[in-house]
Amino acid sequence: MAKEGQFVEQIADINADFPQWYTDVVLKTKLVDYGPVKGTMVIRPYGYAIWENIQEQLNARFRKAGVQNAYFPLLIPMSYFTKEAEHVEGFAPEVAVVTHAGGEELAEPLAIRPTSETIIGTMMSKWVQSYRDLPLKVNQWCNVMRWEKTTRPFLRTSEFLWHEGHTAHASAEEAEEFALQMLGVYKEFMENCLAIPVLTGRKTEKERFAGAVATYTMEAMMRDGKSLQSGTSHYMGQNFAKAFEIQYQGQEGNLQTAYTTSFGVSTRLIGAIIMTHGDERGLLLPPVVAPTQCVIVPIAARKGGVVEACEKLKTELEAAGVRVAFDNTDNSPGWKFNEWEMKGVPVRIELGPRDIEAGKMVCARRDTLEKSELSLSNAAESVKSLLAQVQKDMLEAARARRESRIVYADDMAGILAGVEEGNFVKAGWCGCRACEDKIKEETAATARVYAEGETRETCAVCGEKAKHVIVYARAY
Amino acid sequence: MAKEGQFVEQIADINADFPQWYTDVVLKTKLVDYGPVKGTMVIRPYGYAIWENIQEQLNARFRKAGVQNAYFPLLIPMSYFTKEAEHVEGFAPEVAVVTHAGGEELAEPLAIRPTSETIIGTMMSKWVQSYRDLPLKVNQWCNVMRWEKTTRPFLRTSEFLWHEGHTAHASAEEAEEFALQMLGVYKEFMENCLAIPVLTGRKTEKERFAGAVATYTMEAMMRDGKSLQSGTSHYMGQNFAKAFEIQYQGQEGNLQTAYTTSFGVSTRLIGAIIMTHGDERGLLLPPVVAPTQCVIVPIAARKGGVVEACEKLKTELEAAGVRVAFDNTDNSPGWKFNEWEMKGVPVRIELGPRDIEAGKMVCARRDTLEKSELSLSNAAESVKSLLAQVQKDMLEAARARRESRIVYADDMAGILAGVEEGNFVKAGWCGCRACEDKIKEETAATARVYAEGETRETCAVCGEKAKHVIVYARAY
Repeated sequence: MAKEGQFVEQIADINADFPQWYTDVVLKTKLVDYGPVKGTMVIRPYGYAIWENIQEQLNARFRKAGVQNAYFPLLIPMSYFTKEAEHVEGFAPEVAVVTHAGGEELAEPLAIRPTSETIIGTMMSKWVQSYRDLPLKVNQWCNVMRWEKTTRPFLRTSEFLWHEGHTAHASAEEAEEFALQMLGVYKEFMENCLAIPVLTGRKTEKERFAGAVATYTMEAMMRDGKSLQSGTSHYMGQNFAKAFEIQYQGQEGNLQTAYTTSFGVSTRLIGAIIMTHGDERGLLLPPVVAPTQCVIVPIAARKGGVVEACEKLKTELEAAGVRVAFDNTDNSPGWKFNEWEMKGVPVRIELGPRDIEAGKMVCARRDTLEKSELSLSNAAESVKSLLAQVQKDMLEAARARRESRIVYADDMAGILAGVEEGNFVKAGWCGCRACEDKIKEETAATARVYAEGETRETCAVCGEKAKHVIVYARAY
Repeated sequence: MAKEGQFVEQIADINADFPQWYTDVVLKTKLVDYGPVKGTMVIRPYGYAIWENIQEQLNARFRKAGVQNAYFPLLIPMSYFTKEAEHVEGFAPEVAVVTHAGGEELAEPLAIRPTSETIIGTMMSKWVQSYRDLPLKVNQWCNVMRWEKTTRPFLRTSEFLWHEGHTAHASAEEAEEFALQMLGVYKEFMENCLAIPVLTGRKTEKERFAGAVATYTMEAMMRDGKSLQSGTSHYMGQNFAKAFEIQYQGQEGNLQTAYTTSFGVSTRLIGAIIMTHGDERGLLLPPVVAPTQCVIVPIAARKGGVVEACEKLKTELEAAGVRVAFDNTDNSPGWKFNEWEMKGVPVRIELGPRDIEAGKMVCARRDTLEKSELSLSNAAESVKSLLAQVQKDMLEAARARRESRIVYADDMAGILAGVEEGNFVKAGWCGCRACEDKIKEETAATARVYAEGETRETCAVCGEKAKHVIVYARAY
């Protein structure tokens, strides 16, 4: 049997070594493991269950927006990538290539999809014939592959899981509006399901998706002040529609070219959850996507009636739709507290002989560590409302942390000092690429997103009149 | 606007040309389309929704059996395949190989998984340390790739979607029992969800999975009398556990080797649904997995109140959990009837001014084409019970068709005549490989499954004493 406190000691200090803390947490809570091929990961049941909950939440939102799930092939002819000039430049260097199959060399090498604009564009050109076929909105949940030099579980791996939505529209306005609608869906999902506040808006030309006219992003602040790009929605204009001939007969019979969008989030979101909410004890999972929302730990489990009372409570909570575990192992209560705290389960219920006699249970919140005594009658309703409160408070806590770390700067020194202290830095920008490049070079921070509606006098780099305000940060 | 009967005319005659009927149905009902790379398919929303319903049903059953979902990498080092001798022989010839990635040639070529025993075995050897870690039961939903020469949508494609469950156990008995338990889960799922009766049992040595000790199969009879292997559950003994060193410390401290199983079903099941239930009008989908269970067609839709009554009914059915569509397009009712029949929607509701006045709706079953008048009050309950009846009757109809086409034979001529007439043929077998080979050679039928519990006097090939009874059939 393990000793008390064992797990807590095994995790690196979050304040002293954040990267090691991250590695410890993802491995020791069994979210993930390293795959045998360099840069790959195995998503273990505890991590995959979070992903399934994310899928369920997003699928419900996509359905409402008229987006239908489908599945497109993994392998894409290499020649497809050359059809859209910027796209090939962006993706060709990181593609994995199949050259042999069925014991023979292939006539044309095939790329494992790094993203599916090209193959979905090809199919759309077949499916879209008339204006009646528009808008066309499809989505797929799948694996994609981008050969990366430096990898970390969830954040950057050669293979990862994601969804990619792709739509075709009759007009530029409708397409761009839809790209923004999806950005809104993402933001609402991030806040209400993952309890992660995000800055949303447009990317600079330098940072946008290869082949897009406009890339809209959501940027989340991690515990170390770095930004994590958590999802993007792209307005493609007619770039892909022209390259793949997505054309249709308009209402007046004339041949038209469609406008397209794409949007996606990936298993990276699990990294975002870990690095937004985690603390010195380990994980802290938002109730909406936590695989286990509540764990029941018996106190003096050998005393008559305790196990039975725990099981009864478990059945009651399950019936009310709470994802609940009952830890009836031989470990001590203290050891169990540590383990379930490390695993980030949002609510722990302690139930002992005295509680049962008094008709009460002790509920401990993982986020605030507060304990409260609640009545055992009406337990399901109490636990559900406590979970809802934890969910809400986690968002507010994350928002407060972020707000305290958004600063302004008017020169390069200010930007550098700001990001070194782990802040998002807002600064004026003249709009020229040279100034953007210079900031990246000298501060290792990049332009994360336009701060729409804000104004500053001058560009922090060249001192010329500022046309925009940009949020700069170091990023994952 | 399309003419009446248009769709029906477009499908080949099921009795005259079954393969063409199949191709017509899968393409024209928009279940699937051909991908740009030879042998690949695009699963369109109508087909993918069936797959999602299959996933939901199976996931619920796996959870009950203690199986947890996870995700393992797509790419497997080629050397892994050589670790289990039979396995490499079975799969190496059809593997697709990645030789280049990130602009460089790889040191070791990587296989796109044709199945994941090897990589999951590798991870299990890391995760299983003590007897306390057993049993270990994981499952993944993923894409796999097997380079096939002859392909058909859903039935045989180079890439397909499936689930693969993998378990490790402390004893041979427990492992084999679990493999059989999963076979039972499959059978119950096939019958109750897909309305497809299956013969289940063991495969001959010749037909079993590469690397298994025993392969258990379920075989379904298609409309043309051919068999479709619809899913398999394998008991691996210690073959993979030895090759990948899945070892653990037993209760007495001694080092033990585990016993493993694997089991899977694929998007092939969609082909099984089409070819079990389809008829001259097109698809017929079992209600449990039909994307649309019920379609409302307005009669005289321009008459006051009809559209409103249809929408009210739709809302009511949706609230009761029925997947319902309201076809309010400009097409004629007759055209709509044909189209929705072709798409296999199990129940159609016709609603016109006279029905509304009388407080009734006309419900037409797709399976029997019977129409009945049901009261509009209590509509949701009536429709749900009608759907349940359709589901049940579809299974019984499929079972009756199959039972009438299972025959016995005592010699090769009888087997040949039996399969030529589109039957499953039961015959005695001496147990030797030569006789099994000869049947395949001369009749193009293969040993599908042992008919456990049955006896015949002599082997239909050599006339020696029969040790087993085998179900022979031509197969997809």
